[in-house]
Amino acid sequence: MIETPYLLFLGDAPDQLAAKVAQGIKDWRPENAVGQFRLPGCGADVGLTDMSLQQGLDAGARTLVIGVANRGGVISQDWKDVLIQALEMGYDLASGLHNLLREERDLTSAAQMHGGTLHDVRVPTDAYPIANGRKRSGKRVLAVGTDCSVGKMYTALALDEAMRKRGMKSTFRATGQTGILITGHGVPLDAVIADFMAGAVEYLTPENAADHWDIIEGQGSLFHVSYSGVTMALIHGGQPDALILCHEPTRETMRGLPEYGLPTLEQVRDTALPLARIPNPACEVIGVSINTQHMSDAEAERYLAEVEARLALPSVDPFRQGADRLAEALAAL
Amino acid sequence: MIETPYLLFLGDAPDQLAAKVAQGIKDWRPENAVGQFRLPGCGADVGLTDMSLQQGLDAGARTLVIGVANRGGVISQDWKDVLIQALEMGYDLASGLHNLLREERDLTSAAQMHGGTLHDVRVPTDAYPIANGRKRSGKRVLAVGTDCSVGKMYTALALDEAMRKRGMKSTFRATGQTGILITGHGVPLDAVIADFMAGAVEYLTPENAADHWDIIEGQGSLFHVSYSGVTMALIHGGQPDALILCHEPTRETMRGLPEYGLPTLEQVRDTALPLARIPNPACEVIGVSINTQHMSDAEAERYLAEVEARLALPSVDPFRQGADRLAEALAAL
Repeated sequence: MIETPYLLFLGDAPDQLAAKVAQGIKDWRPENAVGQFRLPGCGADVGLTDMSLQQGLDAGARTLVIGVANRGGVISQDWKDVLIQALEMGYDLASGLHNLLREERDLTSAAQMHGGTLHDVRVPTDAYPIANGRKRSGKRVLAVGTDCSVGKMYTALALDEAMRKRGMKSTFRATGQTGILITGHGVPLDAVIADFMAGAVEYLTPENAADHWDIIEGQGSLFHVSYSGVTMALIHGGQPDALILCHEPTRETMRGLPEYGLPTLEQVRDTALPLARIPNPACEVIGVSINTQHMSDAEAERYLAEVEARLALPSVDPFRQGADRLAEALAAL
Repeated sequence: MIETPYLLFLGDAPDQLAAKVAQGIKDWRPENAVGQFRLPGCGADVGLTDMSLQQGLDAGARTLVIGVANRGGVISQDWKDVLIQALEMGYDLASGLHNLLREERDLTSAAQMHGGTLHDVRVPTDAYPIANGRKRSGKRVLAVGTDCSVGKMYTALALDEAMRKRGMKSTFRATGQTGILITGHGVPLDAVIADFMAGAVEYLTPENAADHWDIIEGQGSLFHVSYSGVTMALIHGGQPDALILCHEPTRETMRGLPEYGLPTLEQVRDTALPLARIPNPACEVIGVSINTQHMSDAEAERYLAEVEARLALPSVDPFRQGADRLAEALAAL
């Protein structure tokens, strides 16, 4: 649906985490991104060549993708000049922000005038049902985290890759803007109306072959007070057979909540598993995924060994090591 | 905002539970309802005089309130004839259904032609923030249930009444269509976009005097897989100081989920309290509210005594007994 390749717009992202949309595209579909576009003061860098809009066009880019997630998701005036210029030059725009491209009159005018398309991937495209809780055929696995932005999507994408390599049947099910931008489809769960959240997850993960796995992208955390309701809907709508615990060990406070410390992996396990067993009494925690990006190799190795001993579960960093051991644990389930 | 008194439209409600909107208005603001209007086959009766539209007008009614909550919230064609006729006769319409009055072209046409107003109380009227989790001054109490429709709103309204009688400062905070129709304001939480649910609850229960209590209307249940995300947002956005457990002992399966049994009160306590302590470590469960409407006096008394002994908490049916003992427990906190 969205024309590739992309030029990734990082804007004035204050830090690397704010650019996780662009980072995800670069890491999982690098062939889809010709470069990155940054404004002065941008604190993020996803490791692509910095390009102007013209350089992006010259490299073949068709769509300028807003690769930065703001708190609140507002399109600032600083961005507008660039976005309008991109439309004038023939780009399409794609965005996963709450503040929709189509809500901005100057953008819709420029798009109409220059024949560009505005893709708001955050907008739900279907009328989701209310969840009915009925057991569906096929298997499902969900990543649950100690916090937001600890690597749940990475874990799911790496697991999908590892399972396919083993010859297992699997489908990555995107529930957020990055996943949707990467795969081209999914449910933008945080934009769904409250009553239909769990139903949207049921819709996203329908009945399937008995040996097929849906790998559901997690969102938020049961311990993140801003978004815990979304996480809950994933657990109850997804009726997972398996949970993977995700954590970023150097994080000191919850993302966006400076007064909140992180829970332990044990707390997440002991909170999420009983809730997951309401729709699926057979659910098990099968592994731990640690985001060790801020650790040295030696630190990461030590930490993973410690967690593995403590929780008696395969514990890996899927970005450093791949997710083979998690795929193996699912195959053994 | 909505002109009173009302004629309560029960439509073709299949059972009494489906008419809980009308029942709530009749029980808590009886002076606002002149009668009930029922279609053939209606399985609900809130105990008001059956009236035609003309009889309602003659009795002074200004607004026809849709007092029935369907699963999915669709306005059926069977209802349309009545609603259009009501507009032709000079009524306003008010509704809390997902399927909005304003989305139905025949209703908007009739309203324009005859000068009537369409009130969709389910539609959020404000742009809610993302929750920030910061501790707010003032006290808050939240009812959490084993299931939907077990008496959480009744408990909150009865508690509000009991607290005011004791001279305590309290405000009932409506989070659903019935509560909003009764009090004229609130947040229609199940219609809020997922990311803003907890923020909407923070917005609804702002900083207040240290001795003021917000009595937050509960929604859904942590054990109801269709709506548990909404319940979670209430627990984390409301940061309650006190929880009240609500239960209907004759219910055999979860509302709308025939394959799911109900949890015990102990399970609700042990699940909800640790989650409530994430934003508010001081939170306590202070009492139990039992909906004994399907029990005899003797059965109710026996059951309440058994629960009180088992949970070591004041256990009352606020509809039969008032909520004085719950108010007392809050005063003692």
